[in-house]
Amino acid sequence: MDLFNVLTIAEARELLSKHISKQSIDKVPLLESLNRVLAKDVFAQEYVPGFNRSTMDGYAVQAGDTFGASDSLPSYLDIVGQVNMGQAPEGGLQPGQAFAIPTGGMLPEGADAVVMVEYTEELDENTIGVTKPVAPGENMVRKGEDVPEGATVLTAGHRIRPQDLGILSATGIIEVPVLPKIRVGIISTGDEVVAPETLPKPGQVRDINSYTLYGLVRNGGGIPKMYGIIEDQFNSLKETMLTAINENDIVLVSGGSSVGARDVSAKVMDDLGKPGVLFHGINIKPGKPTIGAVVNGKPAFGLPGHPVSAMVVYNLLVDPLVRWGKYNNVLDNMFVRAKLTRNTRSAAGREDFLRVQLNVQGEELSAEPVLGKSGLISTMVKADGLARIPEGKEGVEAGEIVEVRIF
Amino acid sequence: MDLFNVLTIAEARELLSKHISKQSIDKVPLLESLNRVLAKDVFAQEYVPGFNRSTMDGYAVQAGDTFGASDSLPSYLDIVGQVNMGQAPEGGLQPGQAFAIPTGGMLPEGADAVVMVEYTEELDENTIGVTKPVAPGENMVRKGEDVPEGATVLTAGHRIRPQDLGILSATGIIEVPVLPKIRVGIISTGDEVVAPETLPKPGQVRDINSYTLYGLVRNGGGIPKMYGIIEDQFNSLKETMLTAINENDIVLVSGGSSVGARDVSAKVMDDLGKPGVLFHGINIKPGKPTIGAVVNGKPAFGLPGHPVSAMVVYNLLVDPLVRWGKYNNVLDNMFVRAKLTRNTRSAAGREDFLRVQLNVQGEELSAEPVLGKSGLISTMVKADGLARIPEGKEGVEAGEIVEVRIF
Repeated sequence: MDLFNVLTIAEARELLSKHISKQSIDKVPLLESLNRVLAKDVFAQEYVPGFNRSTMDGYAVQAGDTFGASDSLPSYLDIVGQVNMGQAPEGGLQPGQAFAIPTGGMLPEGADAVVMVEYTEELDENTIGVTKPVAPGENMVRKGEDVPEGATVLTAGHRIRPQDLGILSATGIIEVPVLPKIRVGIISTGDEVVAPETLPKPGQVRDINSYTLYGLVRNGGGIPKMYGIIEDQFNSLKETMLTAINENDIVLVSGGSSVGARDVSAKVMDDLGKPGVLFHGINIKPGKPTIGAVVNGKPAFGLPGHPVSAMVVYNLLVDPLVRWGKYNNVLDNMFVRAKLTRNTRSAAGREDFLRVQLNVQGEELSAEPVLGKSGLISTMVKADGLARIPEGKEGVEAGEIVEVRIF
Repeated sequence: MDLFNVLTIAEARELLSKHISKQSIDKVPLLESLNRVLAKDVFAQEYVPGFNRSTMDGYAVQAGDTFGASDSLPSYLDIVGQVNMGQAPEGGLQPGQAFAIPTGGMLPEGADAVVMVEYTEELDENTIGVTKPVAPGENMVRKGEDVPEGATVLTAGHRIRPQDLGILSATGIIEVPVLPKIRVGIISTGDEVVAPETLPKPGQVRDINSYTLYGLVRNGGGIPKMYGIIEDQFNSLKETMLTAINENDIVLVSGGSSVGARDVSAKVMDDLGKPGVLFHGINIKPGKPTIGAVVNGKPAFGLPGHPVSAMVVYNLLVDPLVRWGKYNNVLDNMFVRAKLTRNTRSAAGREDFLRVQLNVQGEELSAEPVLGKSGLISTMVKADGLARIPEGKEGVEAGEIVEVRIF
């Protein structure tokens, strides 16, 4: 491990992708598919709605019968029926006729519009006067207007949102093909690290990164499993990593911020399986001292010990795999745009991530840098997101627009 | 229920707030506090870190000893010790001395900076040459620099994010006071509505709203419970609502889009407890035919039958209660700003919500309206968010900035 290959994020992703195993497909009941990623395109087997449907309380009519109608000269129609909710109307509708219909009711054969009850007057039990014309299709949803038969309802790779549950229900799809939930093993190393329930002795600190990583994995839809705090020592780390690799899809080793500790992690990853360590160092700030490995098709990462760096690297290299099962440049980052409030320097040829607080200023969003060392978790607590300064830039001036990924 | 009081959203929130019961406080283990809302301010009992801590591999020194050091004229220091990870150093440091120290190690008494190993040369076992000066405080984190003792770590009302788990762990807070998870009962009504596993007969449609609402409640951190599809009839709705009110903190009645069905919901809410229905109609589009009630301290809503309207009303009136336990104008909406791509009309004195697709155009975000009736769930599936047109405006012109709430 003397070779330190410092890669860009894009190169690191490409290299990892080559060695990561393909995922299987789960079939889950409709409600459990929420926030899961669709594994296949889903098609409608039927029209939604399956019939012409009223969107108002009123009368189903032929629009032509109402043309020219007004308060002073209503169109008179014979009431020939009443549509009941959830039932097909009895009989069809001829010119000059009307059916009473509730919102959501099925239009009778022959009707092509609905007159709102507000624009009718009941002359007697069998006759209404329409006081305002309607156009064909008015106050109704046509058969298949929401979803035509055979239409693609949702496409593979889409993350299922609440309204997507609605459209899946509407089309009768009660089993959904999704990508499996990604299991992530989290190992904390560092001879100075103790659990949060322990009072640290001089020289000791409580574990920060495994707790932050646990939250990031869970919020990305993954299943985190914590393996506790392991000595910075080859045999004990190897034993725990072996268990973690077997029980999970991804393993994160966090902490071990000294060069010596990182070397131990890298040696263990190389020893556990092929191809082992793929890179040792990425070209970003903060987050440079990152180890990327694949062990028998499963990615393993040695994350930097500084809490800010660990979160930045998680966002860039781990989060897409947990959320989407792969690196996907379009989908994996939800950026907002905001105006940076201060001049900020950056090295060209390195991607920089600034902690920022977001504020609304008039019609614009502003991003105020949160200053402080990358070892301070409090700076991430103060921040609302990370602003990206791309590789090509040597800095951003106050007033320039930056992309911000909100936590 | 002949009085239709049409309120603004602000008025509706104020009226509901007056009658909603206060919440209790849960104490949960650290990891379970993720995404929960903090019920009390949390204070640090200790300094984080508890000692001056190195952020680099190198030598702990007195900065003054390195002033003027250069490659051609190094400062020579005696190596008098070695800091071990997780332990207090043995002895202190005098002028002219250095301690070898790993990243994360505790600085010895008397040291005020760390020289990176890259800027030292080892002359013999006991002597180093420092080739670059360091300032006091360089390459180290001071005791309490991350969190000073007694500092407010997080404030009441804050939703706990992954990095917040990290800072809570760092300060040894392993039990967290949070607001309880909000339980939401979802009742679907409508004589035309069938379950997704049923093939609809002519005139029938599958349930959309309860599935969408289920997803919205879950993603807001609440616990949804579905009570199935109930007849639009006083006695059966009353029986189910009584159970739902007893088992939950909020009850949603969805569907029943006709005036008759809405009247049944309102009568049941009035009959179940005090004060009963508070308003019938809100001044927004879509979403006007909304019923708001409080039954013995618990809010109950009659949501419009159209899927788009139901989602808009959920976002404005239910989501804040599920996420924060109350209406909170600052926190309950995460808006992004985007340029509208088309002229859009709106009625002054009414708040309008447009379904929009978001696209990145150069440095800007654009919002393209998704057209279609509010009865079509497919329009919400195409959309990325809802753009708000405030009460005072009669429309928005292409190129104007709108606030968009992303789904």
